[in-house]
Amino acid sequence: MPELRQNLATKEWVIIATERAKRPEDFKSTKARKEQPPFSKECPFCPGNEINTPGETYRISDEKGWVVRSFPNKFAALVNEGERIRKIKGIQRWLNGVGVHEVIVESPVHNMTTALLPVEGVRLIIELYRARYRELLKDDRMETIVIFKNHGEAAGTSLEHPHSQLIATPVVPGQGRYRLEEAMRYYDDTGECVYCKMLNEEIKEQSRMVMETDHFAAFVLYAALGPFHTWILPKRHAPNFGEISDNEMRDMAYILRTVLAKFYHGLDNPDFNYVIRSAPTGGGANDYYHWYLSIVPRLSKTAGFELGSGMFINSSVPEENAKFLREVRVP
Amino acid sequence: MPELRQNLATKEWVIIATERAKRPEDFKSTKARKEQPPFSKECPFCPGNEINTPGETYRISDEKGWVVRSFPNKFAALVNEGERIRKIKGIQRWLNGVGVHEVIVESPVHNMTTALLPVEGVRLIIELYRARYRELLKDDRMETIVIFKNHGEAAGTSLEHPHSQLIATPVVPGQGRYRLEEAMRYYDDTGECVYCKMLNEEIKEQSRMVMETDHFAAFVLYAALGPFHTWILPKRHAPNFGEISDNEMRDMAYILRTVLAKFYHGLDNPDFNYVIRSAPTGGGANDYYHWYLSIVPRLSKTAGFELGSGMFINSSVPEENAKFLREVRVP
Repeated sequence: MPELRQNLATKEWVIIATERAKRPEDFKSTKARKEQPPFSKECPFCPGNEINTPGETYRISDEKGWVVRSFPNKFAALVNEGERIRKIKGIQRWLNGVGVHEVIVESPVHNMTTALLPVEGVRLIIELYRARYRELLKDDRMETIVIFKNHGEAAGTSLEHPHSQLIATPVVPGQGRYRLEEAMRYYDDTGECVYCKMLNEEIKEQSRMVMETDHFAAFVLYAALGPFHTWILPKRHAPNFGEISDNEMRDMAYILRTVLAKFYHGLDNPDFNYVIRSAPTGGGANDYYHWYLSIVPRLSKTAGFELGSGMFINSSVPEENAKFLREVRVP
Repeated sequence: MPELRQNLATKEWVIIATERAKRPEDFKSTKARKEQPPFSKECPFCPGNEINTPGETYRISDEKGWVVRSFPNKFAALVNEGERIRKIKGIQRWLNGVGVHEVIVESPVHNMTTALLPVEGVRLIIELYRARYRELLKDDRMETIVIFKNHGEAAGTSLEHPHSQLIATPVVPGQGRYRLEEAMRYYDDTGECVYCKMLNEEIKEQSRMVMETDHFAAFVLYAALGPFHTWILPKRHAPNFGEISDNEMRDMAYILRTVLAKFYHGLDNPDFNYVIRSAPTGGGANDYYHWYLSIVPRLSKTAGFELGSGMFINSSVPEENAKFLREVRVP
């Protein structure tokens, strides 16, 4: 018999489809990836081609040169120019496309991937995320800052060189709004942060835990929207990613790198997205919203049912996914 | 300069990304489709193989045999067995997977497609949809009935034989809930149905209209979430698809068939999903929710930003898409 599960924080319903259920190892990526060289002359993100990415916004270097750097996306969805203008005319609600869209190059090495970086390399990526997040938080025009990574074609990228992106939007997108409202409602009813609650229950319950560190826990969601859908949640309550401390950053680098390495080795380098979900910038400190990082491996396709209902069908069992990930050895 | 647009009914924000904008003809499907025969011995949906699809729930026949038929999905996400059971334990909200998941075979001809069917053939599909919808409406366990079609691999199907699906869920999925709330709020504020309002404005404005009939209008959305995202909306206010009249059904067959033929001929048979969005079954008659059919061609990929915000990036201009579709001649 299939079952339905609801995510307490997001209120999303998912069908755990036992009739279609696959074992965790059935999700191993089978596609042949083209072997990439460590350096590619044509790659706009490789060292030596910095001239093609003008307007660098941040850089961290060591004695050999830059290690991570950020700059405006050449095909920016939003542009950082002028004032935010809003127009309402009849049914039309309109804003000019003021915002920020940056690329974050994660390593000078063309064929690197987060799972194979040293922990310190991942820490530098997070340090850059934080620096840009904190800087953009000062810009009154920006209402939400979304940091995300697309890994592999199914996840929406065609560029091999390891990179992530940041988009700051001049509005609060729908998901941000609903999640905030749900979190406030839960807080109204219980006096607790719903994310803290979920974190504590998952640590107690253990069956969906992937790993735990001093400052973070990684677990497959009870109502995972698809195979291996995993949250990495900070133990200290904080609504905004920008509040992460130096200590927590080191810890986050370790847990993120390890979880991605478990995916890489256990599922043969699957395509995935991750996103850092943080409260809208206008929220300030509060007791009900909690930032986190969500990893969504792209191992299934969404079709008409998902598009038309917002409900998902997961053809795997979250507890089995978590057990599988716990057992993957990371070199 | 890019722009942001919000859908008045759903409150979804979309970025119309002019920096990445493509002309309508750039979205033409380039993939070679394998030529299919009119009959395939191996196809479970072809005539002669009915024994492999037990439990037929509906059938419409002519003198030569069945023309459309429905039956439970062999890999059903939900099963129609027993009572609905709800459990709440700590953070876990759980239901057993009681529901209905059916396949609707749209034609006995293996290599047929809606765009090439006669209008009467499409009318029979809609008649079957209505019959099943009305029947399931009587089942107290079902809270939402979603009728949808996945056409092509990018839309989530691998079976070539033309078919659609129906899933009845024992909960109200998130999107249904949010849309209902927004519609009620709009009605509170204005005394109008937000969908009627959008329909009337689009008919007046004309720039996004694809076509209009006595009982329906098809238009590309002002805040289209992707290229050619189109709604077909009935002119008569009704919250539930099940209320469609015989007359309206004939008209809907004509407009749906023509719009899909415009996609087929104008964009070289692109992959697409369509879904009939209807109020939750418990709602009954009301003045604020309005059913419609939404067509989502799968011409772009969603990546980390969309997953992480619920906001979309559309690399085409809705008004240009609509003009292009208006000009496609349908044989």
